[in-house]
Amino acid sequence: MPPDAPSSSFASDNASGVHPDVLAAMTAANVGGALAYGADPWTSRARAAFRDLFGVPADVFFTWGGTGANVVGLQCLLAPYEAVLCPESAHINVDECGAPERFTGSKLIGIPTPDGKLRPDQIVEQLHVLGDEHHVQPRVVSITQSTEMGTLYQPDEIAALVDTAHRHGLLVHLDGARIANATAALGGDIRSFTVDAGVDVLTFGGTKNGLMYGEAVVFLTPGLGGAARFVRKQAAQLPSKMRYVSAQFEALLADDLWLRNAGHANAMAKRLADRVAGIDGVAVQRRPEVNAVFATVPRDTLAALQAWSFFWVWDEATTEVRWMTSFDTTEADIGVFADGVASLVDEHARL
Amino acid sequence: MPPDAPSSSFASDNASGVHPDVLAAMTAANVGGALAYGADPWTSRARAAFRDLFGVPADVFFTWGGTGANVVGLQCLLAPYEAVLCPESAHINVDECGAPERFTGSKLIGIPTPDGKLRPDQIVEQLHVLGDEHHVQPRVVSITQSTEMGTLYQPDEIAALVDTAHRHGLLVHLDGARIANATAALGGDIRSFTVDAGVDVLTFGGTKNGLMYGEAVVFLTPGLGGAARFVRKQAAQLPSKMRYVSAQFEALLADDLWLRNAGHANAMAKRLADRVAGIDGVAVQRRPEVNAVFATVPRDTLAALQAWSFFWVWDEATTEVRWMTSFDTTEADIGVFADGVASLVDEHARL
Amino acid sequence: MPPDAPSSSFASDNASGVHPDVLAAMTAANVGGALAYGADPWTSRARAAFRDLFGVPADVFFTWGGTGANVVGLQCLLAPYEAVLCPESAHINVDECGAPERFTGSKLIGIPTPDGKLRPDQIVEQLHVLGDEHHVQPRVVSITQSTEMGTLYQPDEIAALVDTAHRHGLLVHLDGARIANATAALGGDIRSFTVDAGVDVLTFGGTKNGLMYGEAVVFLTPGLGGAARFVRKQAAQLPSKMRYVSAQFEALLADDLWLRNAGHANAMAKRLADRVAGIDGVAVQRRPEVNAVFATVPRDTLAALQAWSFFWVWDEATTEVRWMTSFDTTEADIGVFADGVASLVDEHARL
Amino acid sequence: MPPDAPSSSFASDNASGVHPDVLAAMTAANVGGALAYGADPWTSRARAAFRDLFGVPADVFFTWGGTGANVVGLQCLLAPYEAVLCPESAHINVDECGAPERFTGSKLIGIPTPDGKLRPDQIVEQLHVLGDEHHVQPRVVSITQSTEMGTLYQPDEIAALVDTAHRHGLLVHLDGARIANATAALGGDIRSFTVDAGVDVLTFGGTKNGLMYGEAVVFLTPGLGGAARFVRKQAAQLPSKMRYVSAQFEALLADDLWLRNAGHANAMAKRLADRVAGIDGVAVQRRPEVNAVFATVPRDTLAALQAWSFFWVWDEATTEVRWMTSFDTTEADIGVFADGVASLVDEHARL
Repeated sequence: MPPDAPSSSFASDNASGVHPDVLAAMTAANVGGALAYGADPWTSRARAAFRDLFGVPADVFFTWGGTGANVVGLQCLLAPYEAVLCPESAHINVDECGAPERFTGSKLIGIPTPDGKLRPDQIVEQLHVLGDEHHVQPRVVSITQSTEMGTLYQPDEIAALVDTAHRHGLLVHLDGARIANATAALGGDIRSFTVDAGVDVLTFGGTKNGLMYGEAVVFLTPGLGGAARFVRKQAAQLPSKMRYVSAQFEALLADDLWLRNAGHANAMAKRLADRVAGIDGVAVQRRPEVNAVFATVPRDTLAALQAWSFFWVWDEATTEVRWMTSFDTTEADIGVFADGVASLVDEHARL
Repeated sequence: MPPDAPSSSFASDNASGVHPDVLAAMTAANVGGALAYGADPWTSRARAAFRDLFGVPADVFFTWGGTGANVVGLQCLLAPYEAVLCPESAHINVDECGAPERFTGSKLIGIPTPDGKLRPDQIVEQLHVLGDEHHVQPRVVSITQSTEMGTLYQPDEIAALVDTAHRHGLLVHLDGARIANATAALGGDIRSFTVDAGVDVLTFGGTKNGLMYGEAVVFLTPGLGGAARFVRKQAAQLPSKMRYVSAQFEALLADDLWLRNAGHANAMAKRLADRVAGIDGVAVQRRPEVNAVFATVPRDTLAALQAWSFFWVWDEATTEVRWMTSFDTTEADIGVFADGVASLVDEHARL
Repeated sequence: MPPDAPSSSFASDNASGVHPDVLAAMTAANVGGALAYGADPWTSRARAAFRDLFGVPADVFFTWGGTGANVVGLQCLLAPYEAVLCPESAHINVDECGAPERFTGSKLIGIPTPDGKLRPDQIVEQLHVLGDEHHVQPRVVSITQSTEMGTLYQPDEIAALVDTAHRHGLLVHLDGARIANATAALGGDIRSFTVDAGVDVLTFGGTKNGLMYGEAVVFLTPGLGGAARFVRKQAAQLPSKMRYVSAQFEALLADDLWLRNAGHANAMAKRLADRVAGIDGVAVQRRPEVNAVFATVPRDTLAALQAWSFFWVWDEATTEVRWMTSFDTTEADIGVFADGVASLVDEHARL
Repeated sequence: MPPDAPSSSFASDNASGVHPDVLAAMTAANVGGALAYGADPWTSRARAAFRDLFGVPADVFFTWGGTGANVVGLQCLLAPYEAVLCPESAHINVDECGAPERFTGSKLIGIPTPDGKLRPDQIVEQLHVLGDEHHVQPRVVSITQSTEMGTLYQPDEIAALVDTAHRHGLLVHLDGARIANATAALGGDIRSFTVDAGVDVLTFGGTKNGLMYGEAVVFLTPGLGGAARFVRKQAAQLPSKMRYVSAQFEALLADDLWLRNAGHANAMAKRLADRVAGIDGVAVQRRPEVNAVFATVPRDTLAALQAWSFFWVWDEATTEVRWMTSFDTTEADIGVFADGVASLVDEHARL
């Protein structure tokens, strides 16, 4: 008999709730009228906070969700006969139900990688089609930081990718659904791997780091966001009562809450990896770099584990599963979860 | 010198805040983990509440915003070579930056109307192209209740439209961004002009009636929503932390809060119309049916009025403006606003 | 009893065959191998012939058909959140099954006109939405010369439209499916109403003027066609055995065949109008300017007339029909057709 | 010094001209008027000829080109949130500038293969996402016969693919740009690998087998082509003077011209392979199954060879090139070409 399931879910960091400070900021914003669509003081302040964070006069646009933010950012960079080069495992390529292709009309060219990270030579290999009208024209390189596989680009790796892209006339998009986790893991300097590395536009994720909803599209390169207002509206990503998105971001960026949340989640992943590593039949695949633990579990235990406390299978072939930690994961949660996994695996082993 | 501007805005009902009961429900939902994307108890309950409201086993899908809800609902009814018949003044036709056409690929055929309301014979006039491959094929009739012009369809008017549409193989979509205001104005029976009238799918608006965000796409006709899950995700309209949308709707539908909010807004519009009707130079265009007041103001006063308390011009040619009331409009707000308008108009008249 | 139907059809100028000189040129091009997609000498020569015709270094791209040419030309001018202003009766708006919207993602804003011709003030009336993210942004004015209603713009009328458009940052597209008929009617100077008037891009129609197939997209304004190669391929409008399109255009442009064909068609329309004007019950609506005759016929004769020699009804309400003449319409055809109409109308009148 | 280049090109089968019997049929069709868009006797007869060929009451639609035919066929099978499974090397995936994605809105999932041929288990591996709203839903399997790599599916291989697809609710599309070459290579029975194998819809290529232009979309499964008329028009693939397309197909299908053309092309490829196999430094990669020869050539000879008689490189990494034969390739052409290759390779070897 396993113990009770943990109150937190390890299925995803979007199974978490809202950070109390963020919720408080939303409540505080609920004071009478404010013009819609961003013509309010919360939005002005939140956009300014992003410009302070990156140290450049970035164009900042808030959207509802992460898929929407990626769609808006990419659309601003692309004509429909152009293409996006991305790792095959990219969220935009496999987890957004084709939203980027559907909206931009552009093709995504998914490039196989062992670890979710693109290399400069993989970009170059795709460029022999430039100028040939029969082929979509690579125009954007899209990377995810931290990646969908829980890995991290070092700042110089991103700089090298950007350098290659720019030299060939391509732009670089960074899907930062978990950019806070990456920043925390890299020591806190978000500029090092974004604006300093030359990234053109990024999605700054809020939802997976303690917000209720809301993502930001940040155009670091001047001029690229010139049409973003229209693109966002046409993509149905313009929140009307914008102040509640902006108030959340204001709270998140204040006092480094975003980094504290992410740092905590990262630490919890390491702790979870340590705890489950000792369970017979469970094999942690690599030391967590951010807030994800990838581990194989015995195939015959899988259903029971998911029924007990749901999580996603990452690779059906190897029974590799993904456990995510979050800003609100507690040490107690990890204890309960690890004990439960151990108990269920042991139980099945004895059948 | 006008008095201070009112704390509430009459620019739009989406300039309002969030109803306290709704905010309380969101706060109450912030209790630990819950699986994302709607696999949570709040969503089950809120969807059930909608089925109770309409009295049929409707398929209910929550989206971020109103444009998104319209896009998702329409897409489920349309192939790209098909067309939507709608009043020229429809929100989907003029206020969504082309999102419906962009996403569905379908053409919107805007039909001129004096009052924002479509008539059955206007549908029939468009149908001579059916079967002709050179023309897009009318497939959906989309109406707005209450309309963008502040008018109302009576239940039998909608039933007649639906009857005409269905007899010719067309489906009927109802944009209910302000469906609560319409219901309140019609005596509270939402079924009378939706499910009983034969409407196939509707958008049930929340944002303009006291929610922070969130709209519902309600498929009343069985089968039409079969692909809606995929359409919603591809349209970037799937909220990840869904519970917070659902909790809002649960609160809104409980104890008729939606009707009370809307009824109050409607009453405030009547009050405002009465108050401004007496101002020299201001002419209320028609007795408010819901929560909008349309009035002409002296052209030379317009800028000063907007600078004092912003609102939108509805018709540049006639200096007709639109003043919206909301669930949180107070009698005091109306007094301040009407006094201010009177003062500014008078001041300019004396220049 | 009517006489036998004429061997030529008056239904449309695309019911005609291929001019013998054009067919001869196609046959002459059938000499062994030639690289596909336009890397052949016929294409080089035909493109040069267009540049000679317009007297500017235009970018010229051949496509399969007229809808395809319009789609390619418009796509090169538009982002998806932008819109096209055109007469409501424009072919792109009503006769292309939504192809322009589907492919470009942009909205077409159809403006009512009495005669198929747009006026400068009708453009200006649409521009108050510029800069407002809720509305698609007018970017292109599309006119048809000669129009779908058989009318003509004078060169100074087009110059005035272009001037208005350019002053507000809009571009001008001219659908020239019947540009030859317009040119012939205007005295033969195609530059006067295109390049001299400032038109940015046009479709030069071949099919309705004696070609088997093939249209040209001509970018008169430098730079606008920079992406046309990719757009054309993605729009599935790149003929592989291009030489046969090019050979046709080479023949058409040689020795003014295009003008002679069109001039003949125009003359035949005048002759037809004269002949049918005398028939009791048939009322020619206006003196033909190009190769179309619009006339009302008795409603009870319509079916019999169409069964005898098919043509299209233009306005169901008034039984206005359209009769098109072509390069191969003969005086004998007109005699037979007019006699047949007279006979059938008379026969019905006596029933 | 190489000999003169051959008059025929080995770059592609679309570098060929038009078969004399086809051109004669086009000329014969040039007799006065005929209603446009397919309401003519040639089109009726050509469609009937296709139904005779396949032995089922297929829906047949002619289009301008091969990309257009693929787009129309696929669009009729797909909703935008659905996906196409195809070999990574498929023409629709790499050579159509993204036209299928752009038009259908659907994603193409390219699956790596060694030989351009998909296997049933590769389909099954993609199906674990069915029902998951985050992923595009596989709906169509698209194969090419003969493949872009010059290989052939045996009839039972296609039957097995179809069986797997149908069992899982997917449809099968066959890109038959070179279906005639495949049929000839398989002994002449086109039904064996199409209708008998259960294929749902196919593109029947004409252009690469002696036509000037024109492809056919053939819906073998009843009902799938119900919307094809509208889809074709919206895709700008409806030829107006349709009779000239139809007359070509009528000629091609008469007296097995299509099979004779293709059989000749296939035989010429074998002959070419035999001739170049003996050249030092040239390595034929596999015995030709249809009308393509894939061979590696010395890297330092490539530019000279292409300059002498242009052809395409297939794989930059290995200097593998593709030489295509056609209905009009002569034994003399092959002699000239092989001698020229030998001479140039030898010349470079001696440098």
